[in-house]
Formats: sequence, structure tokens, C-alpha cells
Amino acid sequence: MTHTHSGSEDSPAPAWPAGFRAYTGHGGLREQGDDVSIVVSDRPSASAAVFTRSRFAGPAVLLGRAHAAGRNLRAVVTLAQNANVATGRRGQENAAEVVRRVAAVTGVPAEQVLIGSTGVIGRPLPMDAIRAHFDSLEGRGLAAFEAAPPDVARAMMTTDTRPKTAVRTVGPARVTAVAKGVGMLEPDMATMLAYVFTDAEVSPDDLDGALRGAVDRTFNCLSVDTDTSTSDTVAVIANGAAGPVDPAEFSAVLADLCLDLTLQLARDGEGATKLLRVTVGGARDRGQALRVAKSVVNSPLVKTAVHGADPNWGRVLMAVGKNTDDTDIVPERVTVRFGDIEVYPEEPGDGTLGRLAAVMRQDEVDIGVTLGIGGAEATVYGCDLSAGYVRVNADYTT
Amino acid sequence: MTHTHSGSEDSPAPAWPAGFRAYTGHGGLREQGDDVSIVVSDRPSASAAVFTRSRFAGPAVLLGRAHAAGRNLRAVVTLAQNANVATGRRGQENAAEVVRRVAAVTGVPAEQVLIGSTGVIGRPLPMDAIRAHFDSLEGRGLAAFEAAPPDVARAMMTTDTRPKTAVRTVGPARVTAVAKGVGMLEPDMATMLAYVFTDAEVSPDDLDGALRGAVDRTFNCLSVDTDTSTSDTVAVIANGAAGPVDPAEFSAVLADLCLDLTLQLARDGEGATKLLRVTVGGARDRGQALRVAKSVVNSPLVKTAVHGADPNWGRVLMAVGKNTDDTDIVPERVTVRFGDIEVYPEEPGDGTLGRLAAVMRQDEVDIGVTLGIGGAEATVYGCDLSAGYVRVNADYTT
Repeated sequence: MTHTHSGSEDSPAPAWPAGFRAYTGHGGLREQGDDVSIVVSDRPSASAAVFTRSRFAGPAVLLGRAHAAGRNLRAVVTLAQNANVATGRRGQENAAEVVRRVAAVTGVPAEQVLIGSTGVIGRPLPMDAIRAHFDSLEGRGLAAFEAAPPDVARAMMTTDTRPKTAVRTVGPARVTAVAKGVGMLEPDMATMLAYVFTDAEVSPDDLDGALRGAVDRTFNCLSVDTDTSTSDTVAVIANGAAGPVDPAEFSAVLADLCLDLTLQLARDGEGATKLLRVTVGGARDRGQALRVAKSVVNSPLVKTAVHGADPNWGRVLMAVGKNTDDTDIVPERVTVRFGDIEVYPEEPGDGTLGRLAAVMRQDEVDIGVTLGIGGAEATVYGCDLSAGYVRVNADYTT
Repeated sequence: MTHTHSGSEDSPAPAWPAGFRAYTGHGGLREQGDDVSIVVSDRPSASAAVFTRSRFAGPAVLLGRAHAAGRNLRAVVTLAQNANVATGRRGQENAAEVVRRVAAVTGVPAEQVLIGSTGVIGRPLPMDAIRAHFDSLEGRGLAAFEAAPPDVARAMMTTDTRPKTAVRTVGPARVTAVAKGVGMLEPDMATMLAYVFTDAEVSPDDLDGALRGAVDRTFNCLSVDTDTSTSDTVAVIANGAAGPVDPAEFSAVLADLCLDLTLQLARDGEGATKLLRVTVGGARDRGQALRVAKSVVNSPLVKTAVHGADPNWGRVLMAVGKNTDDTDIVPERVTVRFGDIEVYPEEPGDGTLGRLAAVMRQDEVDIGVTLGIGGAEATVYGCDLSAGYVRVNADYTT
């Protein structure tokens, strides 16, 4: 049986699975507030991870890929406010040094530490402040590890407006996840930072299969602004403290948890006021369904129409139509729905317009498109485009 | 010799080439102002045209393609405010009826009339008002054809803030163009509506080659918002009244004129406050250069940074890096410039920061990227992303 807990700040604070503990502190990366977080398992663990495919993947991702290859990650450290990307050899050395410092504090071998960095690109890490922070942390040791999952999620935030956590249970085990991400968010193989911790006993192969399956249908179906981050990382660490669980059930729970985080990320997209969910069915194959759905969820004109609560199906047709290489898409076979109301080719009657307006004013808007070609379907997640997105990004840095 | 005239409202009104005349009037498509325009040649002409590749190309484009195939277009009619797209069989009949009415007024065979429609998608044309308008126009005939090029460009506008015209001379001949387009603007084979009229004598083959060559480097390198219109049309009509010209010179003049219009379109992008010009060099081939340049010019994070006059080269690197299939792009070989100032990998010194800030505050921002792979280059044109774009599009219709 699975139990669900969706992590908003109103809910009771979610807990870590058995054997995990966490630390957050202020390492001088931002002016105030915690910006360094560490989660660690007290015993050897199995792990799986996926990373951004960006050609400008940063030192954290390069180091993370190397360490994740061992499939036995035990700790995750995250630096917020600075992505440490495009920082050259010095950036690589700094990432490696942070990992060594985390190993010293936690007693976990350095090659079992995953590092995440998120924030400004092209600026060196403030290593003097970071070193001073780890100096004082080493004196306190694991006694300083008293942070709850929302504390860690909050310490990972950049322009996020709320911490993102999710918790599930599977058999005797608990699964706890933290994530961040608001902009530069069209994950490709992974999303911004999302970490999943469980005390379930799961083999590295099962973990890897479950993670890739889940990411493919959740984080990889998310887009806030078409911009793929240089720092995307999703990792799951299973320390087995609660004993074995059914692998299929674990996969289902992990997928459900990743979807929960994906929706939280979409809802907190920079400037977002609405969650936008686009489902394309009747496609030739899943690739086509995904491509068309992404065209719709990423169209600035669809996003602004949703922001204005305007049931502008013409723009949805435009976004479908711009897939110019999909020559099997023909207008005569396409249908469009907002919520459960068909708007094309059957226009809503006057009696339906009030209900349509109500659908558009909700804080979740569903757009359904069928292509009438085959049986494949895909659902993607995004948000509206508001003046708030422009405000947040017109002067985020320098 | 060629002479240049770039059409802003301050400049003296550009004139039509010999043998062309034009009409504008209020056909009831919008509340007030001219919304119907017709340009016609008094003699048989050669023509070439390119159209949107959208899978939802509207009746005007379908009819236009059929008529353009004759390569002897003599008249162009444009209806503004309603794209007549996704309007089914009735939309096709309405477009054909408008063409027949234009043929009756001008005496030009219907199959030599090109029709353009631009505006809201999914709404039927207001045919009662349009019929009444043509009834009265038929009474007046060609005597009513007294409009200048800026009048026509103005009657074609939707959310455009200024009419777009351009004039060149080539040998004894004049080349006059009108265009519109502000949003839903990532042309694919063509842009929004742009019409070029000349009294040069040019063969249909030469016209076609000159037009495709020009469009490929100008309108097809423009993007305001990644959204490809259902109505894109570019056509050139040459009536030969001024006699023959050198085909190579004509091609060069046409390309120059199309670039002029492209820059006008980019500058007037919805909500735009700055022209953004991105050049990618050192690419494997032109396709790669174009793909990377489009990634940069279309990145919402680059566009908002430009809006905020923020020299945020990290976002440019991110946009280059998201071409994940271009595995020959490696950070170590990439350079980035704003204006003529290198910002990556060589960071500008403190002495240069003032000049960099000045570059970013100009109303034209040039971003230069070199990939260090090969010798191919491409330049694309766009604009910044402002809260004005959201305002214009959050409640443009219904």
C-alpha cells in the first residue's frame, strides 16, 4: 500500500527515511539565509542518477557523473545561488574541494558524495567564505545534522518562491524527496536539482530502471521556458535500512513522487500564476505526441493566452501547426479541448461559454489535443507566461 | 547603382513603381481604420512567392499557393484583423469570394490575385460588412486607387505599432515593399505578410531565385517568439514597366530590401524595446550556425537579460549548450562577445565594464558567438522580451 503526502508548507513537516540525516547552513553564497545543504546516509547505499545533456554542463555535473557511476552514492551536498558553471579549471578544483570537505565532515568517502550547484553562471564560487564555513562545521561534526526535508529544500532555492518536498511510503519503507527549479527549466534527461532518499532496499539496477522510467514521464515532460539548465541533476539514494520492497511497487511510487515534484516545479515556474497541463493523444508515436505537446506548452502565445484566461484555441492550432515536418498532421483530423470542453472543430455554443470562461480562470488549465493519426499519447507540464517572468529575469544578476 | 530608402514614418512617403496603384479602405474587420488594401499592376507581370510551412496554413495561403503557381500575379489584397484560419469550408469560400470581388474591381483575372489575411485565428470573416464594402468600391473602380505605400502598410497592421515599407532602385527600376508582423513570428520559409512590387523586367525564374535567396537570409532568420504563423506570405511582383535590369543586381537589391524589412519587423516585435542580432561563426555548417543562433535569439532568459541591459553571458552559454545533439560543441572552444567586447572565456576587465554597460543599453544589441569548429556563419534577428509582450498577448482576443 502507498500513502501520499504532498509537501506544501502547510502540511506537517515530512521526515527523512531511517538512516538519513541532514544539515543546512549559511556558507556565504548569498547575503542571508542557508545556502549550503548536506543529506547523508549512515550506511552504504545504492544509487541512481541522471544529469543534464547540456553541452555546457558544469563541474558539479561532471564530478557528479563520475561519482554516480559507482552506484553507491551516500551523501548529497548542494550549493545554492551560484551554479559554478563556465568557471574553467578553477571551477572544477573548487567543486572537488567542496566534495572533499563534505567527506571530511560526514566520514563518507569523497567518491560517494554527489555535489549540486545552482544559480548564476560564469562566476567563481566565494571559496574564502565556503572554506570558513566548512572549518566551523568540521568542529561540530554530525551533531550539526538536524535539518528536516523542507529546510534542505529551502536552502536549495534560488528564485523559487517555496521549498519543494514530497514523501511516499512503500511497504515498510519511506521515500523522501527534495527539489528546486523555477526557470531555465526545460529538462533534457533530468531537471533542475531533485534528490530522492529512501530506506528501502533496492538494487542499483532496479533503482536505475525506476528512476529513468519516472524521469522520462515527469521531469522530462516539464518546461517553464524552453531553456535547458547546465546543472540539472536527479538522484535517488536507497540505504536499505527498512529492508526490501517490491521493485514494481517501488517504481510506481517513485514515478508518482516525481510527478508530484514536477507539478510543484511547474506551479512555481518564474512568474507563474497557473499550472498548464497539455495532453496530446491520437499521435503516430510517443515522440510525435511529446513534440506537439511541447510546442503547445512552450508557445509564448498559448502561455500568455492562458495567463489572460483567454480560451484562444486558434493559438493552440498554430502551435500544433508549427510542427511542419509532421506531414501526417492535417487540420481535418485535429480536435482541441480546454478542460472537458471541445473548442475545435466544434465551437462551444453560447450556453457553454460561461463554463469555458470558468475553466480558463482556474489555477490549473488542461489543454487536450487529439491528432487522429494513431494511438500514442503524452502529457507535459508547464505554466503561464506573465510579466512576473520578465521582472524576475530582466535583472536577476550582475 | 542602388539607392537606399528605409521607410520610417519620418521619411518622405515612398512611391509605387511605374504601373502600380493601390487602394485602402475600411471593410468592417476592425472597429475603425482601414483594414482592406489592394495593390495592382496595370499590366501583366511576373511573380514569385513563398508561404508558411505551418500544418494549419489557412485558406488565404492555400488559395495563394494555387494562384502563385502561375507566376503571373498582378494584384494583392490583404484583410487585416482576421486571419481566416481554422474556419473550415466556409473560410475557403469566403477567401475565394474576396478574390473574385477584387478581380471585378480591378479587371485582373481572379487567378492572378493573391490574398493575404492576418489577425485572429478561428473566427469567420465578417462577410456582410466586407460585401457591402466591395459593393461600394465597385461603383468607384480604379479611381479609388490612390493610396501610397505607407497607407497600405498601415492598413495591413494588427498589433504592429508602425507601418513597414522599404524602397530601393535598381537600374531604371524601382522596388517598393510593404510588410507587417509583430508576434507569432518565427517564419519558416516565409514571414508574416511582405509584398514587393517592382517595375523592373525580371523573368519568373530569376524572380523566384532572387526571392528564395533573400528570404533564406532575412525573414527566415527572424524570430520574435518562436511561434510560426499560419498566414506567412512573401511575394514579389515585377511588371516590367521600367525595362530589364541585371538579374544579379536585382537579387542583391531584393536581399538588401528584405533585410531592411526584417530589421523593421524585429524592432517592432510585440513589446520589443531593442533589436537583438545574434551571429554565430566558426560552425561546422550553416545549419549548425543557424540552429545555435536561433537557440540564443529565442532564449527567454537571454531576451529578458537583454531587456534588463544585463550582459549575462552565462545565459548565452546556456543557450548554446542546450543544443545537446551538437556533440562537437565543447566549452573550451567557444567564445562570446557583446558588441565588440569579449566576455567569455576572457572576462572583461574592470576598465571595460563601463563600455560593456553602454553596449547593453543601446537599442541594438549584438551578440557574437564563435564555436571554433569550422568556417560557417549565420546571423539571426530578434528582440528583447518585455512585460509589454505579455500585456499585448494576455488579452489580444475573445
